[in-house]
Amino acid sequence: MQIGMVGLGKMGGNMAERLRRGGHDVVGYDRDPAVSDVAGLKELVQRLQAPRVVWVMVPAGAPTQQTVDELGDLLAEGDIIVDGGNSHYVDDQKHAAELGEKGIGFVDCGVSGGVWGLQNGYALMCGGEKAHVDRVMPIFETLKPEGEDGFVHAGDVGAGHFAKMVHNGIEYGMMQAFAEGWELLEASDVVKDVRGSFSSWRTGTVIRSWLLDLMVRALDDDEHLEELKGYAQDSGEGRWTVQAAVDHSVPLPVITAALYARFASRQDDSPAMKVVAALRNQFGGHAVESK
Amino acid sequence: MQIGMVGLGKMGGNMAERLRRGGHDVVGYDRDPAVSDVAGLKELVQRLQAPRVVWVMVPAGAPTQQTVDELGDLLAEGDIIVDGGNSHYVDDQKHAAELGEKGIGFVDCGVSGGVWGLQNGYALMCGGEKAHVDRVMPIFETLKPEGEDGFVHAGDVGAGHFAKMVHNGIEYGMMQAFAEGWELLEASDVVKDVRGSFSSWRTGTVIRSWLLDLMVRALDDDEHLEELKGYAQDSGEGRWTVQAAVDHSVPLPVITAALYARFASRQDDSPAMKVVAALRNQFGGHAVESK
Amino acid sequence: MQIGMVGLGKMGGNMAERLRRGGHDVVGYDRDPAVSDVAGLKELVQRLQAPRVVWVMVPAGAPTQQTVDELGDLLAEGDIIVDGGNSHYVDDQKHAAELGEKGIGFVDCGVSGGVWGLQNGYALMCGGEKAHVDRVMPIFETLKPEGEDGFVHAGDVGAGHFAKMVHNGIEYGMMQAFAEGWELLEASDVVKDVRGSFSSWRTGTVIRSWLLDLMVRALDDDEHLEELKGYAQDSGEGRWTVQAAVDHSVPLPVITAALYARFASRQDDSPAMKVVAALRNQFGGHAVESK
Amino acid sequence: MQIGMVGLGKMGGNMAERLRRGGHDVVGYDRDPAVSDVAGLKELVQRLQAPRVVWVMVPAGAPTQQTVDELGDLLAEGDIIVDGGNSHYVDDQKHAAELGEKGIGFVDCGVSGGVWGLQNGYALMCGGEKAHVDRVMPIFETLKPEGEDGFVHAGDVGAGHFAKMVHNGIEYGMMQAFAEGWELLEASDVVKDVRGSFSSWRTGTVIRSWLLDLMVRALDDDEHLEELKGYAQDSGEGRWTVQAAVDHSVPLPVITAALYARFASRQDDSPAMKVVAALRNQFGGHAVESK
Repeated sequence: MQIGMVGLGKMGGNMAERLRRGGHDVVGYDRDPAVSDVAGLKELVQRLQAPRVVWVMVPAGAPTQQTVDELGDLLAEGDIIVDGGNSHYVDDQKHAAELGEKGIGFVDCGVSGGVWGLQNGYALMCGGEKAHVDRVMPIFETLKPEGEDGFVHAGDVGAGHFAKMVHNGIEYGMMQAFAEGWELLEASDVVKDVRGSFSSWRTGTVIRSWLLDLMVRALDDDEHLEELKGYAQDSGEGRWTVQAAVDHSVPLPVITAALYARFASRQDDSPAMKVVAALRNQFGGHAVESK
Repeated sequence: MQIGMVGLGKMGGNMAERLRRGGHDVVGYDRDPAVSDVAGLKELVQRLQAPRVVWVMVPAGAPTQQTVDELGDLLAEGDIIVDGGNSHYVDDQKHAAELGEKGIGFVDCGVSGGVWGLQNGYALMCGGEKAHVDRVMPIFETLKPEGEDGFVHAGDVGAGHFAKMVHNGIEYGMMQAFAEGWELLEASDVVKDVRGSFSSWRTGTVIRSWLLDLMVRALDDDEHLEELKGYAQDSGEGRWTVQAAVDHSVPLPVITAALYARFASRQDDSPAMKVVAALRNQFGGHAVESK
Repeated sequence: MQIGMVGLGKMGGNMAERLRRGGHDVVGYDRDPAVSDVAGLKELVQRLQAPRVVWVMVPAGAPTQQTVDELGDLLAEGDIIVDGGNSHYVDDQKHAAELGEKGIGFVDCGVSGGVWGLQNGYALMCGGEKAHVDRVMPIFETLKPEGEDGFVHAGDVGAGHFAKMVHNGIEYGMMQAFAEGWELLEASDVVKDVRGSFSSWRTGTVIRSWLLDLMVRALDDDEHLEELKGYAQDSGEGRWTVQAAVDHSVPLPVITAALYARFASRQDDSPAMKVVAALRNQFGGHAVESK
Repeated sequence: MQIGMVGLGKMGGNMAERLRRGGHDVVGYDRDPAVSDVAGLKELVQRLQAPRVVWVMVPAGAPTQQTVDELGDLLAEGDIIVDGGNSHYVDDQKHAAELGEKGIGFVDCGVSGGVWGLQNGYALMCGGEKAHVDRVMPIFETLKPEGEDGFVHAGDVGAGHFAKMVHNGIEYGMMQAFAEGWELLEASDVVKDVRGSFSSWRTGTVIRSWLLDLMVRALDDDEHLEELKGYAQDSGEGRWTVQAAVDHSVPLPVITAALYARFASRQDDSPAMKVVAALRNQFGGHAVESK
């Protein structure tokens, strides 16, 4: 089927390519004219036959907001926008309401797959009305990995990004679990082969997983990770997961600890621990380290 | 090669079977005469040709201690004991020292694989002197899964159980990450298909893993886990991981949170939260729930 | 000076009384005619001489929003609204902006003191423009406790409620620290006098505090807290603290753990731990407890 | 009454002085001849009239072990040793058993008070048989602060140090709560007077406490703690608290988080976060910071 794809970066570009390989007619737009099929969103919409489906694959937040707003002005009743970016699920509900007034459908779709997606397919979690999701289904079928898994219509508008957000929250927890295990093994006097220990777990154990495979690969490159700093960004979805937990009164100790570990990794010095040092000095005369 | 196997329960029995299928001569002993090849440890030792290898596969703690002590009296210089149970790594070092005085070798071996091990092989993490490990290698080769992974000589005596302990610690963290994600999805108003969301993650995502596969299987049986109580035992290795963290000054927030969640799951009512309720009542006149 | 007080409940009523005892002219309004000096906000505003100061002391959220909106329509340029409720600091900024367009000043004021405030005074943390704060200062002077502490002009609009929010976050952490200590003492075999242990800490120790005093008082009433359920509400400010932490990339492991412990205390059964039980059953055949 | 005091450092020296001011006959021994009344433990024991009471006030671990062992050889049936150091409660039980075979009594006593103890008295938590505690009571009466609080016979041998350990665990949690609150206030854009906010809480609030007083004092010296590094040692008792929690299946999320924050404060770079950075790089091509 025909589809417009807005945003042809690392993710959008590969998804457009996978769709073309799958026989779809993709009209792509990107700010970079070198990769764009059209000059702007207006031309994109003109090039598509109604009823249109436009997949937005741009950074979450302001860029997505702006693109959805512009498309809302250009598209017509019966068209559908799919937001495949990493948007916050609360924004989806706002978008769907605004577009709905114009008769434009909205589907949110969390996409996972990274650099391997072009070849292996993308896991897709979408939210929205059944009629809208059904319209986009040929696209989902091509993007998703082969087999029965890899796609879910998770629920109402927002459910797709909610599920993707939770996926990323789980990812934070799993990564931190491996990270803590590695740190403890490295700290041990008796364990000499930490990389080999991780490698031994790749088959026959409870924790075998793609992350474990990546872990071994990373240790193959740099056995004690001596080339790296213990510094990790967070993409926003971990934060939203914790905020959703607070909003829903759900305790998430592990996922939150993983998020906080990232926050702390970006501090040169812990402000909180200055206080602890100051208090120990006050009540016990314990030595402090001055700068 | 010839090996004695002490403990023919769910784990030991299957391991003996896998070894026999691999062509080894296994003499098994179990307290249960119905499955035992010999009447006792004395006969077991007599049936084996020196230099002997005896694999102990009994519960950690007192049973392992007693078995190792008895075998220490029965075996001779040049023999080797392998402790394949879930022993604490600090006990290994004691056992190795005591047996070493008699010239008996000791290898500790963490074993993972559970009920699938007979067919697919067991992941093995062992610790000990190279000469001892080399002697047992034909056994390890048969027990381990096919392929290059699934076995590590992790380091000195204790390193095998240390690595297995850390494996289990990581397992605690991963399980809790999935558990928290599930709880948040179930709490959401917009997400309608939680099972399907997990299923969608099985291919193409960062968190694809055997635990995720098991998760989907569990949800296939009981979509909202309505048949289960939120009650989880811990096997001891999670505790040892936290104690090792404290001993090594390594912060393990995620693994510890996972352990504490299990502790809390076994409390009918949280004693700590009685205090919080009592204090809120004291300073704010906040209502408390009486029993 | 003259002041209008909206909301004459447990907090507002006592504050009005303390102000009257301090010589101020308080015109009070409450939905309950039995305690109200006027029939409504309109009459309240009419009774006050311009430039007016109206202190809003109603529940945070919708009631405060509605009161501020109504007063915004009734008051005139040069008047000042003080929000003394437990409002979210982000709401303050919205209120100040809206009122500012009409020339009405806005001061947010976090108030602590509970049932002891009438007698001992209320700790006050306020935010807003210096000119506005200065105008209200005679009121603050009377409400605050005697001595040099107990009042701060913490910063711009929102800073007062931000500081109060953080106060409550710290309170969560402190209460949980005492709660955990109590639970561990109660679990000990060797400790026989838990109440006495807490009592012994009231003088000469690092943890002496008002909360410790309340703790001993609570244990005097019910030594093992046998009459209470381990069930604790949260007032919203703990949640905002965690959300502010996430917004500011500040790791708050202790305060967050205290909040999550309250969430968990309100669950009959932990959904997350059902997952852990289900997974243990899947991979290890571990027994689960059925409902 | 007469008492021997072993260890005349910062704590023991002041305690000896307080006892002398209270009319007791103190014979002190210290490795430093300049402050010692006797040449060695042998002379100390000779100088005391049977039945003797000897208070051991030396560092926990090996020094205490050695002192108790030596005194065990020198003392006679009916004598009593009080261990006032920060010993692990499990060591107390060993000491009591060994000394008990010789008829020597043993009392463990947790002591709090630091540099203010000489003047204000020391909070004392002791464990042991009632007959032994009663014998030492005149000493306890003089050391403790005035008033009804400040002393507890907490339970059997070990209970005193257990209670002191828990006191310190609570202290960890409280300090971390203040520390986190400070970090969040400092991170806020709207809050300008962080020191003043803490100061405002000293009267009329739920969190008023000695630690808060010390906090304000520390901020008076260095308002933004710019002179300090966020680096904090731990004294051992926080670790024991967490280990006791694990041994007793008691979840201590707050106290443990506080301990882990100290561990992390002493790392130049977080090993665990290297893993997180490495994994993010593997699956997402996310940039890493190289050393």
